[in-house]
Amino acid sequence: MTTFARIDRGERRAAFARLEGERLLLLAGAPWDGPTPTGDEVPLEGARLLAPVTPTKIVCVGRNYRAHAAELGNDVPAEPLLFFKPPSSLVGPGEAIELPEESSRVDHEAELGVVIGARCRRVSEDRALDFVFGYTCVNDVTARDLQKKDGQWTRAKGFDTFCPAGPFLVTGIDPSALAVRCRVNGEARQDGNTRDMIFSIARLIAYISGVMTLEPGDLIATGTPHGVGPLAAGDLVEVDVEGVGALRSPVRPRG
Amino acid sequence: MTTFARIDRGERRAAFARLEGERLLLLAGAPWDGPTPTGDEVPLEGARLLAPVTPTKIVCVGRNYRAHAAELGNDVPAEPLLFFKPPSSLVGPGEAIELPEESSRVDHEAELGVVIGARCRRVSEDRALDFVFGYTCVNDVTARDLQKKDGQWTRAKGFDTFCPAGPFLVTGIDPSALAVRCRVNGEARQDGNTRDMIFSIARLIAYISGVMTLEPGDLIATGTPHGVGPLAAGDLVEVDVEGVGALRSPVRPRG
Repeated sequence: MTTFARIDRGERRAAFARLEGERLLLLAGAPWDGPTPTGDEVPLEGARLLAPVTPTKIVCVGRNYRAHAAELGNDVPAEPLLFFKPPSSLVGPGEAIELPEESSRVDHEAELGVVIGARCRRVSEDRALDFVFGYTCVNDVTARDLQKKDGQWTRAKGFDTFCPAGPFLVTGIDPSALAVRCRVNGEARQDGNTRDMIFSIARLIAYISGVMTLEPGDLIATGTPHGVGPLAAGDLVEVDVEGVGALRSPVRPRG
Repeated sequence: MTTFARIDRGERRAAFARLEGERLLLLAGAPWDGPTPTGDEVPLEGARLLAPVTPTKIVCVGRNYRAHAAELGNDVPAEPLLFFKPPSSLVGPGEAIELPEESSRVDHEAELGVVIGARCRRVSEDRALDFVFGYTCVNDVTARDLQKKDGQWTRAKGFDTFCPAGPFLVTGIDPSALAVRCRVNGEARQDGNTRDMIFSIARLIAYISGVMTLEPGDLIATGTPHGVGPLAAGDLVEVDVEGVGALRSPVRPRG
């Protein structure tokens, strides 16, 4: 297991780094490109972490847990239900989720994020996991009222700050039975497990790559378990994926 | 008026270039970044043109022409209807549209493409056009049967090769009354005009940037006029926007 982060180095510079104990060893590129360390390092404490991904696209999966489909009154889909979040919606750990005025109901959705390591197109389910680089936590923040109103989920899922991800990108773990939890102000809201996914990660990658080429660094948000609920200004929301880390986001009105 | 292209230089290298008569003057960056010419040039004839955009996202607008909304039996929307195509769907002029086996009805949709020149967020309608760099032709290829079946349009609009764009990126033109046409094998299929858009380009940019930050190079496909129809293997489809150019794509089965 190896842990990576991406840090803000100031002056609009960012760098990926490998976590070694409490130190971040800076890399001369993205982790999935196999970069060498630059020789520079910074302490983890005090480093400003960014979302540990730089995707060309963020592909999300709706209704991938039976109990969550049921709680919103939806049937279980026969095929994966896909949508996109734009890269502009990404924020890192500790960065605020901003509640837009257009919505009166913004929900958390705790998810396991899968980061692609190598370009793939029409890959078989058997080989799909070979194209995974690692895993991170994702909060698929959703304006529930606009989701219902708009038909297409572009706006409801796509506001700036609606895709917190991180804090780390972790490789070399088995994703098949990980707890996926959400807490709001310390109170448990979601408590699922990736073993309850309707479509496995391998199946999702096979399906998605059958439609569109996946590029290194692309992020797949694999769906949320039951227990989604509203966020309010002043909340602290935490998405916790077992073995991957805890992603904390304060919530505030859009400035 | 200035015309830009992006060309394949071989060995996985691509470069933007400014068109000067019949010569392409290579640039040391993207046109919207104000790059200087490198001093290198190639003749337009024989150059392999790529899609003249490198967007972080492709934001598309559905039902933005009254007659097209009607032809598919839809109401005119009260607000712009947004969806995304992934960057992986982009192909350049002359590159084939590949028909996936999953669909038995793939349609052409001729559109004016707007390329953003500077980062913008929550920009007013009055100022919106200041953030436009230029214009190109887009074919918003759509698997009509999957669009109806899936609910979300991600797959129907997102297959590889489903976003031909180009051949040129043109600046300094007035986009408010341009003919937008589609021909298939030389036969007229669509013949609209941007003056008939329900939501103007300025309104679209104000609305979209109110949801998500637009980045330099981002592409907005502004909707298609009436006359959409099916493509078949062996067809040659041409999207022609007045003053912008003609984008030709052969059509073939997915390989």
